[in-house]
Amino acid sequence: MNKIFLNTAKQLLPTLHKTKIKLDLAADLTPGKPLIADFGNHYTGYFSLSLSFRGSPADAPALIRLKFCEHISEIDEDTSNYQGWVSKSWIQEEIVHVDYLPQVLRLERRYAFRYVVIESLAASGKYQVIADSCEVVASTSAGKEVTPVGNSELEKRIDAIALRTLSECMQSEFEDGPKRDRRLWLGDLRLQALTNYSTFQNNDLVKRCLYLFAGTANGEGTVSACVFTKPKVVADDTYMFDYSLFFVSVLHDYYFHTKDRKTLEELLPTAEQQIKLAAKRFKDDVIEDSDVLGWCFLDWNLALNKQCGAQAVYIYALRQLIALRQELGLKSESYEAELKAKIEAGVNYFYDEAAGVFVSGASKQISYASNVWMVLAKVFDKKKNREILLRLKELGAVEIVTPYMYHHYVLALIESGLVEEARQTMDGYWGAMANDGADTFYELFNPSNPNESPYGGKAVLSYCHAWSCTPSFLLREYFKE
Amino acid sequence: MNKIFLNTAKQLLPTLHKTKIKLDLAADLTPGKPLIADFGNHYTGYFSLSLSFRGSPADAPALIRLKFCEHISEIDEDTSNYQGWVSKSWIQEEIVHVDYLPQVLRLERRYAFRYVVIESLAASGKYQVIADSCEVVASTSAGKEVTPVGNSELEKRIDAIALRTLSECMQSEFEDGPKRDRRLWLGDLRLQALTNYSTFQNNDLVKRCLYLFAGTANGEGTVSACVFTKPKVVADDTYMFDYSLFFVSVLHDYYFHTKDRKTLEELLPTAEQQIKLAAKRFKDDVIEDSDVLGWCFLDWNLALNKQCGAQAVYIYALRQLIALRQELGLKSESYEAELKAKIEAGVNYFYDEAAGVFVSGASKQISYASNVWMVLAKVFDKKKNREILLRLKELGAVEIVTPYMYHHYVLALIESGLVEEARQTMDGYWGAMANDGADTFYELFNPSNPNESPYGGKAVLSYCHAWSCTPSFLLREYFKE
Repeated sequence: MNKIFLNTAKQLLPTLHKTKIKLDLAADLTPGKPLIADFGNHYTGYFSLSLSFRGSPADAPALIRLKFCEHISEIDEDTSNYQGWVSKSWIQEEIVHVDYLPQVLRLERRYAFRYVVIESLAASGKYQVIADSCEVVASTSAGKEVTPVGNSELEKRIDAIALRTLSECMQSEFEDGPKRDRRLWLGDLRLQALTNYSTFQNNDLVKRCLYLFAGTANGEGTVSACVFTKPKVVADDTYMFDYSLFFVSVLHDYYFHTKDRKTLEELLPTAEQQIKLAAKRFKDDVIEDSDVLGWCFLDWNLALNKQCGAQAVYIYALRQLIALRQELGLKSESYEAELKAKIEAGVNYFYDEAAGVFVSGASKQISYASNVWMVLAKVFDKKKNREILLRLKELGAVEIVTPYMYHHYVLALIESGLVEEARQTMDGYWGAMANDGADTFYELFNPSNPNESPYGGKAVLSYCHAWSCTPSFLLREYFKE
Repeated sequence: MNKIFLNTAKQLLPTLHKTKIKLDLAADLTPGKPLIADFGNHYTGYFSLSLSFRGSPADAPALIRLKFCEHISEIDEDTSNYQGWVSKSWIQEEIVHVDYLPQVLRLERRYAFRYVVIESLAASGKYQVIADSCEVVASTSAGKEVTPVGNSELEKRIDAIALRTLSECMQSEFEDGPKRDRRLWLGDLRLQALTNYSTFQNNDLVKRCLYLFAGTANGEGTVSACVFTKPKVVADDTYMFDYSLFFVSVLHDYYFHTKDRKTLEELLPTAEQQIKLAAKRFKDDVIEDSDVLGWCFLDWNLALNKQCGAQAVYIYALRQLIALRQELGLKSESYEAELKAKIEAGVNYFYDEAAGVFVSGASKQISYASNVWMVLAKVFDKKKNREILLRLKELGAVEIVTPYMYHHYVLALIESGLVEEARQTMDGYWGAMANDGADTFYELFNPSNPNESPYGGKAVLSYCHAWSCTPSFLLREYFKE
């Protein structure tokens, strides 16, 4: 733990802007007849329910079930059946005894929701429970109104939803999702920060998160994939090959948007250490295969081989480190030699001349993820990259699962000059969520299999997930007419 | 509402004596493996659980089930099956999300329990929830240690359990039961107050309760069967023929134990009004039959006809009113004439010469309740009362269900000179509960059918119920050697 870094992070704790939204209900609560309170948009905050009664004095406690739903499909979902491997404790459902009426029931936990299912589970025949009104005190550290942009009504809707997604995930830190996991992940942070520069511009929040990661690097200097801040600041013991390297990327993007030289000077050693540690995982300049390397995220696809993508992410991050060193007037001869070696080995080992695409692992798997990352790593020129991207469909490449990977695909298309295809991809994918009734963009969305979940059940899915917010970045940086 | 009376009640709000009891647990909480915390005796108060974790940082909330059990039989009871007519909201069970660990989880509600079932319902594979310790801050307004008495080990145990029952029910008011209904009922109050004079002698608490009832009498002056004090003082709209008359009894007993003349002067009009209103329910000096009269409690036996018992309770209370008037030097000629008339009519209408007992209602039902109350009303002399009580067994009289009615039976035996039989009855009935593992005496106990419940299920039963505390009164007033 680097106390100086963590103290800097603490100084940057943001102000949470609070908004109170009240819904009048004036409804009887009767067992078996749940009431749906619809707040009209996604909110993250604290909920209270004003209860009263009619009839005789309340001669037994009221037993109230409250279920908080981000997405309309959660309302009727039977959560009691959920048996997935992600803890069911993430399901936003409470059963509360109310001893005395009238009472304003204030829940202590923070929830993320648009809809609240309110049900009386047990009644005394002598009185009728009445829900008078309910209220959320919503919070965000986004701190600014941003007007949606776009070249069509659909794009403006996509942008509005993406902005909402990002602002809902901006709390005391950038969170991956205000429902789940409610915390700072490095991979999500990278895309949030990028989108933030184009929109809310709360750059101090990015800085705070950089210092949280740097301040909790482990003994050998690896930054964790995830940092907890409650009840105290501590790094998770989850380390991911790509996420650690993205510390370099987040610092790179932060510096080039802010020119904050002091932060660069303080955090460059941490960034450099990620490259140095990752460099140890190569043999003859080729990265270890997936099963040896440990977790390299890339996408939520368990069938995906990560070897080629890992090589590409390393090249991508190494370029950014060299660019940062240059800003400080530092020479990078050995890093440049290494970059050249990793690119050459990457092409020799992973590029399949016959197929015209990159392949990964012993089984020579062809996937979008491997090729998209090789395009973003710029190992070939724009023309060849374009050919690669266009080949993928024909070859039945392993598909993209998450909006996170979709973002990288869209960016790869843009950087290869396929801007119109990129735009159609964005409109098609995020537009399908918008048309699915999204108020915020989901953690996971497969248009051809809307019930897909990597967790063994949909009940724990996050329907407001930071890594899905990038249309607001893409629209402003690449799709302006 | 009589504000002056309610103000007097407010001034008498007792001090709650708090005791902290801590249990070390140091146990892993694993789904499917509930832990039982045994506090060793019955406590009424506020519970907290000190939780920590082992392994990786807690990456999902802990989901903890807590079930508070007064009686050991509740531990394994499947409460999800309860379908009775008393609200299942009385079941002392909570499911709580704990967002951050370590944490001291403090529950806001008051519980009544000896055992707490503590279970983790959902786990993340990354960490282990640990229950370090738990604690109850127990409260009572009894305020005095009383040494158990008795002529045998069993009687001393009975007395200790009865004392515990009473002290647990002594909170801001006399409550019927700290689990359920957690409030002031007039019928319970009468027996609690009697036992209190022989034991804890918190006579101001009786006075407070008298003023609560008098202060919330309805428009025509009837006192309710039950008063709520939270969130504000209000009478229940439940009126019971016998309970209203027992206002006279509670005032009578209070006055003769305290000689508090001012209270008698202030509350005599309320007492007198109960007699006057009850008097309207007679025709030719015979009380209306059960179905016309409305609720007259006597016992929790739905098959019981209450007509004869109601006549007896009226006579019993009227005698007490006359005695109170005499203390204030008031003449009671008309009341005495009425008493004579009601006794005569009671004998003529309800006494069955051939059977040698009282019968009740159109079906001429023979029950313990009817006869016990006629004995306590002293409509016959001691010898004849004794014969009546001894006849009941032979005649297959409708049985007693509650400890409340058992108390009256034991007292009737005593007053008829059958002291040894009374004592054996007490030892047998309350002793059976003691041998069933009682720490406090139950709301309901049928030795020949331990699963009996008037509520359609045992899950809501109160195992610490005020009306069961009278052995501590009987032992000190009648069974001293």
